[in-house]
Amino acid sequence: MNEAALLAARPNKKLVEMLDFENAKDKVLMGVERRSMIISDTEKRTIAYHEAGHTLVADFLPGTDPVHKVTIIPRGRALGLTQQLPLDDKYNYSKEYLLNRITILLGGRAAEEVVLQQQTTGAGDDLEKATEMARKMVCEWGMSDRLGPLTFGKNEEHIFLGREVARAKDYSEETALAIDAEIKRFVIECATRARQILEENIEKLHALARALLERETLDREDIAQILRARPFQEAPAPA
Amino acid sequence: MNEAALLAARPNKKLVEMLDFENAKDKVLMGVERRSMIISDTEKRTIAYHEAGHTLVADFLPGTDPVHKVTIIPRGRALGLTQQLPLDDKYNYSKEYLLNRITILLGGRAAEEVVLQQQTTGAGDDLEKATEMARKMVCEWGMSDRLGPLTFGKNEEHIFLGREVARAKDYSEETALAIDAEIKRFVIECATRARQILEENIEKLHALARALLERETLDREDIAQILRARPFQEAPAPA
Amino acid sequence: MNEAALLAARPNKKLVEMLDFENAKDKVLMGVERRSMIISDTEKRTIAYHEAGHTLVADFLPGTDPVHKVTIIPRGRALGLTQQLPLDDKYNYSKEYLLNRITILLGGRAAEEVVLQQQTTGAGDDLEKATEMARKMVCEWGMSDRLGPLTFGKNEEHIFLGREVARAKDYSEETALAIDAEIKRFVIECATRARQILEENIEKLHALARALLERETLDREDIAQILRARPFQEAPAPA
Amino acid sequence: MNEAALLAARPNKKLVEMLDFENAKDKVLMGVERRSMIISDTEKRTIAYHEAGHTLVADFLPGTDPVHKVTIIPRGRALGLTQQLPLDDKYNYSKEYLLNRITILLGGRAAEEVVLQQQTTGAGDDLEKATEMARKMVCEWGMSDRLGPLTFGKNEEHIFLGREVARAKDYSEETALAIDAEIKRFVIECATRARQILEENIEKLHALARALLERETLDREDIAQILRARPFQEAPAPA
Amino acid sequence: MNEAALLAARPNKKLVEMLDFENAKDKVLMGVERRSMIISDTEKRTIAYHEAGHTLVADFLPGTDPVHKVTIIPRGRALGLTQQLPLDDKYNYSKEYLLNRITILLGGRAAEEVVLQQQTTGAGDDLEKATEMARKMVCEWGMSDRLGPLTFGKNEEHIFLGREVARAKDYSEETALAIDAEIKRFVIECATRARQILEENIEKLHALARALLERETLDREDIAQILRARPFQEAPAPA
Amino acid sequence: MNEAALLAARPNKKLVEMLDFENAKDKVLMGVERRSMIISDTEKRTIAYHEAGHTLVADFLPGTDPVHKVTIIPRGRALGLTQQLPLDDKYNYSKEYLLNRITILLGGRAAEEVVLQQQTTGAGDDLEKATEMARKMVCEWGMSDRLGPLTFGKNEEHIFLGREVARAKDYSEETALAIDAEIKRFVIECATRARQILEENIEKLHALARALLERETLDREDIAQILRARPFQEAPAPA
Repeated sequence: MNEAALLAARPNKKLVEMLDFENAKDKVLMGVERRSMIISDTEKRTIAYHEAGHTLVADFLPGTDPVHKVTIIPRGRALGLTQQLPLDDKYNYSKEYLLNRITILLGGRAAEEVVLQQQTTGAGDDLEKATEMARKMVCEWGMSDRLGPLTFGKNEEHIFLGREVARAKDYSEETALAIDAEIKRFVIECATRARQILEENIEKLHALARALLERETLDREDIAQILRARPFQEAPAPA
Repeated sequence: MNEAALLAARPNKKLVEMLDFENAKDKVLMGVERRSMIISDTEKRTIAYHEAGHTLVADFLPGTDPVHKVTIIPRGRALGLTQQLPLDDKYNYSKEYLLNRITILLGGRAAEEVVLQQQTTGAGDDLEKATEMARKMVCEWGMSDRLGPLTFGKNEEHIFLGREVARAKDYSEETALAIDAEIKRFVIECATRARQILEENIEKLHALARALLERETLDREDIAQILRARPFQEAPAPA
Repeated sequence: MNEAALLAARPNKKLVEMLDFENAKDKVLMGVERRSMIISDTEKRTIAYHEAGHTLVADFLPGTDPVHKVTIIPRGRALGLTQQLPLDDKYNYSKEYLLNRITILLGGRAAEEVVLQQQTTGAGDDLEKATEMARKMVCEWGMSDRLGPLTFGKNEEHIFLGREVARAKDYSEETALAIDAEIKRFVIECATRARQILEENIEKLHALARALLERETLDREDIAQILRARPFQEAPAPA
Repeated sequence: MNEAALLAARPNKKLVEMLDFENAKDKVLMGVERRSMIISDTEKRTIAYHEAGHTLVADFLPGTDPVHKVTIIPRGRALGLTQQLPLDDKYNYSKEYLLNRITILLGGRAAEEVVLQQQTTGAGDDLEKATEMARKMVCEWGMSDRLGPLTFGKNEEHIFLGREVARAKDYSEETALAIDAEIKRFVIECATRARQILEENIEKLHALARALLERETLDREDIAQILRARPFQEAPAPA
Repeated sequence: MNEAALLAARPNKKLVEMLDFENAKDKVLMGVERRSMIISDTEKRTIAYHEAGHTLVADFLPGTDPVHKVTIIPRGRALGLTQQLPLDDKYNYSKEYLLNRITILLGGRAAEEVVLQQQTTGAGDDLEKATEMARKMVCEWGMSDRLGPLTFGKNEEHIFLGREVARAKDYSEETALAIDAEIKRFVIECATRARQILEENIEKLHALARALLERETLDREDIAQILRARPFQEAPAPA
Repeated sequence: MNEAALLAARPNKKLVEMLDFENAKDKVLMGVERRSMIISDTEKRTIAYHEAGHTLVADFLPGTDPVHKVTIIPRGRALGLTQQLPLDDKYNYSKEYLLNRITILLGGRAAEEVVLQQQTTGAGDDLEKATEMARKMVCEWGMSDRLGPLTFGKNEEHIFLGREVARAKDYSEETALAIDAEIKRFVIECATRARQILEENIEKLHALARALLERETLDREDIAQILRARPFQEAPAPA
């Protein structure tokens, strides 16, 4: 609210409009827009396919939060963003929901691989989040059949060295090996699924990336329109 | 006492009634009620089956503390609560009592698995408590036949890095492996027992969950009435 | 002395009697009596057999310090106590004496197992002391033939993280394994001996437990009288 | 800007010239020139071939940043420097770009091996940077097919002991082994490629080293001229 | 000097005598005499044979520092002491000298084993010193043929956690295993030699122990007289 | 300069002579002479052969820094010193130069072994420096063919626990094993070479040691004269 009022105040508006609220929400959730960054066409294309990958996988998977907005305008530390908003408040997440989240996170890298045959550093944050989520599924939420309904590693946040150090000391090397294998299995299966979704919907992926390159930001309706339209158009190669 | 007097004072009562004491006890033991949280019907159903699972397992197992109250109204950080009160003060816990405690803790996740074919993050705290209890049985109370009447890991609370770090350094990798295996064995056996109890009493589980969805909170007499009644009714699917 | 004078002063006695000294010594050595604790008959029976186990093993083993007093009145953090007083000051402990000490420490758990077919958390302190003593025999006093007259782990008390952390870094994994095996061998052999002593003297064990349940505290003469008397009577089952 | 103005101010110039900006940039990016260091002819030859190696590999590999300047005048802690300037701002680095970077970093050591049959301590910084880059490719950017799109090790910078300590605790020994193997594979493949490029262009390497020994510093045009000229001349042996 | 003057001053002596210097030296080197400690005859016998063991082994081995005094009067934390004084200052110790030192250190435990068939806690300090000396031979002084002229573990005293922690991180598990094996080999060989010396000179051992029990303290001449005399007399069994 | 002026000032000299500079340099580089230390003839002989070993190996190996001075007068913590001065400033060290340095460092121990058939603690510092140099060759300078042009272990000096702790966490156990093996290989090969040089030049070794025992300090010219003279004389055995 404060942020929206401030945004409205700058151009000497008398009223705070809906758009001000939207902008304020984006600023709070996603960081400040950085339109001054000069990004090459090649990188823009990479970013567009990356975000289109997240968006298409999220759209495809049932039971996931709808994509509210996707953009290739840099914000904060991110070069692009796919923003999902849940339909209702959630307090309890199912294994299926979490696997879908991981699949969406890996959709960006997958799109780059499928279309551009490349891997870039930009996916690092996605991979870290996906790995951490898979780790929690195995170590905190008992969602691995192989490891069973146990937890591994202490969650004492106040321990001096951070919980990771304490956690690692908590079990044997063989258990550590099983944990690693299960985390890897979850992530690899999601990555495979993400690629499969993108390959089977490659035309939609091209259409989304093309639209992002043209319009920079797409909202939920834009996305729906693009994904339901036929035929699809591939994003143009950089000049 | 203070809390009860305060609760009574708010609506300008002249007397502190029994209900005020009950409410005060709940507030102290379980945290503040959070009725303002908006929880979807799907989540409510999950929570109801989860708490019904704890309650039914606790009711079924002999020698455990009776369930005093069960609720699906969020309190503190919990989405639901099953409250057991011991019949008399206990200072010394037997291996059988502790295994029953673990089985009850795992009853929530088991109910979700049996009825809803799902695993959710909400069971994380239960699993952590169950694992920690199994660890203490093996490492502090000498209750594993394989490891024998020895203790493993120091309990020096004042050590700078917390006891887990020191504990882990105290024995060989092979011993760590044996400890892991015994902890897992205890927890898996209890999980299997919890599922078995619920599957064999599936109608009672449905009846308890249904009642929780209808009435939100059940006390000891409600539970007794439901569990002794016939025939049982399944909880309705969410709208 | 101070404590005895204080104890005598409370009931307005003019003289400090021998009993005041005895009470003062108990208070200093064993903590304050906690007569106000309400303990169920089942737990009292467990405690009585536990303490009777320590006492009987101590009485049986040659060359150990005589039992001065045994009680099932809670004191400090303990639910019961078996107090041994050495016949003369000792500065140098032989391997045989130490193994006897471990056997006595394990006599409590052994009595519960033999008579009540149960293991309880109350033995945790005994097991920790027994394990630590076995560890010192192996790691500090060179009493394991397999590991030989070497010491393992530094004893630098002033090291920041406590000596256990430093100690663990001091030798290879294979040595850690050998240390674990020897500690376990010492403790298991003592546990087996404790059970054997109790099983072969089961009537004396019942007689001691019965007397403890009746009189709560036994001194050296009471114990001698009970253990030399015939026939013995079993402790009654709880109401 | 400030630095350029200061540099211009010293010799009492009235104007800040382009050269002042160039010098200022070098000072900021590469440290202060240390012309007073007395370096033997043998070492100068080593440095010349080392820098020529970086330069030639960078020139050879497609898609890398062009070499802006190469020098054998010591600056800061470096005995020589090869300075690359990107054609446009980059925010997202592809696996291919990173492997090229590692190959360029290893070009210095490779040139010494190929021409002088020696390894020197001067390559230490290059090797450290190459290893760290390969580690990030494997552990942070998911660029190893064998390890997949996972991250390994936490990046929590504020942890007391530095992130490396925490990172190492995060996975099993087998995973550590796989990480080591992949890092080594990336670096060895790049080192092999660097040697191959230098061996196949050995005359250009000699020409660059000779020019560096004669002129000490070469800019982009000098380099282009040398690398396109024919025939090439070997750098003279030290007196 | 100060100490000698003080000792002389107490009984109002006018002169500081040679004996005062001797006493002062003992006090500084070995701690204060604790004649008030009441030690049982059994323990005195143990101590006498323990010290006699050190003394006899020291006397037997060539090239070691002569025994200046041996006593069974407690001093500081020790129950008895064998004091060796080097013939001249040493700055550089040979492998042979160090192995002899370890053998002498293990002579106390060996004497208890050979004569009394017992192991006691009193040897703990000797074993720790012997182990530490063997460790330094292997890890700091390159005296193990198997490990060669390398050092293992850093000696940086100022490191926060003490050097042992840092040292342990410095080499692989296989090297740790080899170090353990070599340390053990050195100590076991010395222990075997100490037993062998004592068994082959058992009459001298009895004679020394008997003399210690009779006279409490023996100086160099006493020891020489006893060890050259014939026949020897065994120390009497305790009353 | 200051030190030289101070040294000249003490005996009331008017001029600072060349000798004062030499003495000042020695004091700064090697610590204060400790002529008051009383060292036995046996130890002096050990020290003489030890320093002669360093000197002879240094003289023999091509491309090493010439020995400027060798002495058996204790300075600082050292019992003797062999001082090498480089012919010109070096910034970049080749693998060959470093292996020669290690060989020279091991020449002292080797001389004791070859002539006196002994190992002493005095070589500890040499061995530590040799090991550390070999470690850096393998871990920081990429000079092991087996491990390749990678670095192992972080060099972050400001990390709280010192870099060794962080370094050890950086790679797998198998890599640690390979590093240990390579460090050992480098050191053992150098030790073998040092012994070989000394055995093949045993008469020169005797001559140098004899000269050191007679003259205590030798400068570069003395050494040259002795090593070029014929026949050589063995150092006399101690009285």
